[in-house]
Amino acid sequence: MAQRAQKRPGRRPGASGTRAAILAAARTQFADSGFDAASVRAIARAADVDPALVLHYFGSKAALFAAALEIPFEADEIVERVVHGPRDQLGRRLALFFLSIWDEPARREAIMALLRAATTSADAADMLRERIGERVLRPVGEHLGEPDAALRMSLCASHLVGIGITRYIVHIEPIASLEPGALADLVAPALQRYMTGSLDS
Amino acid sequence: MAQRAQKRPGRRPGASGTRAAILAAARTQFADSGFDAASVRAIARAADVDPALVLHYFGSKAALFAAALEIPFEADEIVERVVHGPRDQLGRRLALFFLSIWDEPARREAIMALLRAATTSADAADMLRERIGERVLRPVGEHLGEPDAALRMSLCASHLVGIGITRYIVHIEPIASLEPGALADLVAPALQRYMTGSLDS
Repeated sequence: MAQRAQKRPGRRPGASGTRAAILAAARTQFADSGFDAASVRAIARAADVDPALVLHYFGSKAALFAAALEIPFEADEIVERVVHGPRDQLGRRLALFFLSIWDEPARREAIMALLRAATTSADAADMLRERIGERVLRPVGEHLGEPDAALRMSLCASHLVGIGITRYIVHIEPIASLEPGALADLVAPALQRYMTGSLDS
Repeated sequence: MAQRAQKRPGRRPGASGTRAAILAAARTQFADSGFDAASVRAIARAADVDPALVLHYFGSKAALFAAALEIPFEADEIVERVVHGPRDQLGRRLALFFLSIWDEPARREAIMALLRAATTSADAADMLRERIGERVLRPVGEHLGEPDAALRMSLCASHLVGIGITRYIVHIEPIASLEPGALADLVAPALQRYMTGSLDS
């Protein structure tokens, strides 16, 4: 935060740069302090902007919180790329979709911000749960045509989240350096069973 | 080692409370600032103790970093509880072991501190990777008697880490409220395949 505040004062990054700086500062504040303790004033100071500008862009602290902890894809995108196609390849497409999201730096940063916030703030964890539900679990689950869709999709989530962390954050080998297609092949059977297989052991 | 020191009988509760406060402050500092920027002085201030006391307990900043980011179990424990027993139940025992670790509040807090630090600090992520290797992947992998033990165990890690996060941090249902035995039954086939099955798709 100190580094951000020391940015050259003459530089005007433009609206999208300012918005991104506010979001980055908000993610740090919410992760460090939780929703209640975080303040628009402190976020504005960390982003080196006037508090009024924060409210101009985002409207309220709650709306800023929601924007800072946004999942970096829409339900339409995951349905389009995962649900459509041969049914016996659902697990592989789900794996490839998530790997492609993590492989884009901006989207990866957004996901890491969500995880970081969720490990420190119960408010952020609550919001992440709602967002995962509305962006991933429900839209894909509705298209499965299987009983226990919530259980099935939560099991998928429990694998995909861990793949992201071990591959992109903790860099455990060889998962960290496998080609996306090779890793998708390895985990597809587990995801496919969770989505369409028998869950009896 | 930290675990053993805390369990030693006859310790003064004041000392263990101070030690815990220093560790908690160190986890926050390392997660926020990374190893290089964190200072023993700032950690001492956050824990409300003299910097000399931090060094008295931990010896050095590096040793404090290591203690703050300790995995809350020993390799012996996981080998004992996972490797020993029927081979076709390896996956289920691995799942039950991790659920039992997360179900203990002190151990859960240590794991959450590790994950929080790893999402913010590359130093912490490096240390977590080394620790997972020496406490989980290598000791269990050595006993598998399978080729590709590193790949197999990293795939297990990619599921187990995600189960912990979705169940205990983000609280995704129904995973969050399943009985440990029922959840272990659901994920055991995936873990068993990673440990002993064919990895060709």
